[in-house]
Amino acid sequence: MADDSDRAKIQESIKLQGEVVRKLKESKADKEIVAEEVAKLLALKAQLNDGETSGKITLKTPKGTRDYGPQQMALRNSVLNKIETIFKLHGAETIETPVFELKEILTGKYGEDSKLIYDLADQGGEFLALRYDLTVPFARYLAMNKVTNIKRYHIAKVYRRDAPSFTKGRYREFYQCDFDIAGNYDAMLPEVECLKIVSEALDAVKIGKYVIKVNHRLLLNSIFEVCGVPTDLFRPVCSSVDKLDKLPWEEVKAEMMTKGLSSDIADKVGEFIKQSGDRTLLNSLKEGPLGSSSSGPKALSELSLLADYLELCGSVNEKVVFDLSLARGLDYYTGIIYEAVINDKEVGSVAGGGRYDNLVAMFDPKSRGVSCVGVSLGVERIFSVLEAKGEKYRTTDVQVYVASAQKGLVKERLKLTSMLWDAGINTEHSYKGNPKLLSQLQYCEENQIPLVIILGQDEISRSVVKVRNVTTRQEEEVPCGELINYLLAMITKLSVT
Amino acid sequence: MADDSDRAKIQESIKLQGEVVRKLKESKADKEIVAEEVAKLLALKAQLNDGETSGKITLKTPKGTRDYGPQQMALRNSVLNKIETIFKLHGAETIETPVFELKEILTGKYGEDSKLIYDLADQGGEFLALRYDLTVPFARYLAMNKVTNIKRYHIAKVYRRDAPSFTKGRYREFYQCDFDIAGNYDAMLPEVECLKIVSEALDAVKIGKYVIKVNHRLLLNSIFEVCGVPTDLFRPVCSSVDKLDKLPWEEVKAEMMTKGLSSDIADKVGEFIKQSGDRTLLNSLKEGPLGSSSSGPKALSELSLLADYLELCGSVNEKVVFDLSLARGLDYYTGIIYEAVINDKEVGSVAGGGRYDNLVAMFDPKSRGVSCVGVSLGVERIFSVLEAKGEKYRTTDVQVYVASAQKGLVKERLKLTSMLWDAGINTEHSYKGNPKLLSQLQYCEENQIPLVIILGQDEISRSVVKVRNVTTRQEEEVPCGELINYLLAMITKLSVT
Repeated sequence: MADDSDRAKIQESIKLQGEVVRKLKESKADKEIVAEEVAKLLALKAQLNDGETSGKITLKTPKGTRDYGPQQMALRNSVLNKIETIFKLHGAETIETPVFELKEILTGKYGEDSKLIYDLADQGGEFLALRYDLTVPFARYLAMNKVTNIKRYHIAKVYRRDAPSFTKGRYREFYQCDFDIAGNYDAMLPEVECLKIVSEALDAVKIGKYVIKVNHRLLLNSIFEVCGVPTDLFRPVCSSVDKLDKLPWEEVKAEMMTKGLSSDIADKVGEFIKQSGDRTLLNSLKEGPLGSSSSGPKALSELSLLADYLELCGSVNEKVVFDLSLARGLDYYTGIIYEAVINDKEVGSVAGGGRYDNLVAMFDPKSRGVSCVGVSLGVERIFSVLEAKGEKYRTTDVQVYVASAQKGLVKERLKLTSMLWDAGINTEHSYKGNPKLLSQLQYCEENQIPLVIILGQDEISRSVVKVRNVTTRQEEEVPCGELINYLLAMITKLSVT
Repeated sequence: MADDSDRAKIQESIKLQGEVVRKLKESKADKEIVAEEVAKLLALKAQLNDGETSGKITLKTPKGTRDYGPQQMALRNSVLNKIETIFKLHGAETIETPVFELKEILTGKYGEDSKLIYDLADQGGEFLALRYDLTVPFARYLAMNKVTNIKRYHIAKVYRRDAPSFTKGRYREFYQCDFDIAGNYDAMLPEVECLKIVSEALDAVKIGKYVIKVNHRLLLNSIFEVCGVPTDLFRPVCSSVDKLDKLPWEEVKAEMMTKGLSSDIADKVGEFIKQSGDRTLLNSLKEGPLGSSSSGPKALSELSLLADYLELCGSVNEKVVFDLSLARGLDYYTGIIYEAVINDKEVGSVAGGGRYDNLVAMFDPKSRGVSCVGVSLGVERIFSVLEAKGEKYRTTDVQVYVASAQKGLVKERLKLTSMLWDAGINTEHSYKGNPKLLSQLQYCEENQIPLVIILGQDEISRSVVKVRNVTTRQEEEVPCGELINYLLAMITKLSVT
């Protein structure tokens, strides 16, 4: 669409940008910066071709993203609705925050993964980035709106420039379903509710067998302390421990050593984190060196109280295992952490969360904190698991189709259809003026529409309509005046059976 | 969080980027390009300060965006659910597309407003932009997935770098609720359904009085033709006509003249577009010069058929007025267009849409088209109107609160609460170990929780609990074994009355 003077300007810019790229390469500048400038050069060149090459538009979605058609959406919405029902079962409210935040809000909250944040182009002095999760925006919301206690859920998409893996259901745009309790409350009561929610939600979506691993950040710190890990390596080592579910110990150990840990200290850490079990484990740990470390006793007494509470909460108790290798990647956790994993190694974690008591204070100008604990359901992984089962879902909830048996009945059809809409009955009819009866009936069978009204001249003259049950193919004549009540009764009957 | 070697790299990049900016300025490069490079320079400088200035974080949401708390969300979700119900009433499926698209997908589709598109920073050779509406992504979806007929709705947020106006409910991030029918069908059957949906949705959300203006893009073209508007000015003049609902005719005329229209042609156009009315208007137009223009007869016969169909569709017919000044801002419309307006001048349009038969072909490599017609509900404006009424909405749907009358009952409380969750009863209890009875009861009143179970040592020893109706303050003792059934019956009873 560029006119001649625009073209000249763009050509000038291309020349300049070419120069910039050349100089950057010459000076051996950072590869990413060079790549960016090259990309910009290509974009400028693309502008020149704009409008002349409309046939050449690349017909794709951005890398790592995809469209979801009606069939996929039916499954996804069914899962999201079940999860929302569980969140509401626990009395949660919902909030919404913008899809992007000021860049500085996100910076420094995610540890090693910060490089995966999507930046927006600056177009007016504000540096923005797409949200990376729902937790940091939630903490910003609490600090900004001075909210000191709330139980909220938030179901929305987040964005990470990760390497996409479609087989593992890893996309750059994906849903998170978060439930968090903010407020200064008594120990383990919010935590046990979060674990209960994890198990209720996973049961509701019928994910199959799963285990909920539970650990405590302070217990990890105590382990590092008693093993002699230098304090400044706590976080990097913690992030290595987190990989133990995907990598063999040897590789994790090697990574720890790259980070500056000695081999024997790494091995000591390894001995600890191999342990998992029920409350017997907690008791034996109390007797050992962790029991006399600086933060071990607090962690172990919280875990024991949690174990007490879990015993009162039904089947969730059978799912929980205390696992000292659980670390959780993100920087912001401060207390109990947990993760639900299913048996499929490829899928791994389907829910995770924990306590993060210091995040809100990072945003408050006076560093006033709000204690928080929450859980995030990995719904994309849940979707993949359920999609693999290949079940068919209905994509609409049409209850009645209004068909015509002859030509020339479009107005009668529209009038009747409109009447059914007014009665709140989910109804479709053909957008063809004179559709064939057979194709109308086929449409109903293909789309599992339970009832068809068949309009015919003869019936119209007698003020009746024919109603057909699509499954049984039984037909009945119903007087027009009784039609709405007849249909409502039939719909109720069919939805019960 | 930058360590020393990172810092050195960043400093080097700053030096280089400074050079780039200097050279661009020197060579008087395009302002936008310079601004972008300056922004990048500032971003690099900001990286150096990362982590050192956590206390200085600006605690705000990006310009033109906001958070929505539980109270606002309750209203918003209530409106969105009603609209979704109407879309499903008409048998629509739903799809989802990514929040961003390749920039070139959006380019050249929106006419004068393209400058409001949000670009993402390029970080790997892909140029992305946030979606500006849901229609262009829908057309891209159809072309890419080779879908030739579908009836779909899509409720999602879109992004426009418009001047925010909070009083008018104009934000940079806002919801759209779109319903579209794609497929080659018979004239006006999809159109009349879209108009029906507009009226059903506006009635469902109780927006008050409204009018649905209807026009035809070809009728506008005929007007321009018979008035002698040069063909290349059709689009720009059309976009001026579109402003007639906000500006007086004199200003619209002045704008037309700036675009190159002569005063007398503008006046001729003005005479035509001042007309509005019912089908009598259509008949009189057929007799006039439009009736013998090149595309006027087609437009008028479609509008007449639409009028015929509308008469069969109940109350929507009373809302429709044919209005020759309706133009709709976007470039892509090709046939019938419509817009619903409420009486409040400040708010204006609350729904709009029309036929766009050429948009899909713009994406198809072989220019194969799919005819489409749709409607988009301006829910943000609907939210503002309803919010102004100041009604209170419940933000949760908690049915039962489990309270304790004495200290030391936290485990009994948790056990009972957990049992109610397992029974699917929306239940809360306090996260304090020993909460005061009075504050628990106050919480129920404040949050309109209808039922409280009051646990006491005495009742526990007799295997009963006290259930209190919060509104009537009546209390009843219920044996533990009968509690669930009792509560379910009470909840049904209370929800009916």
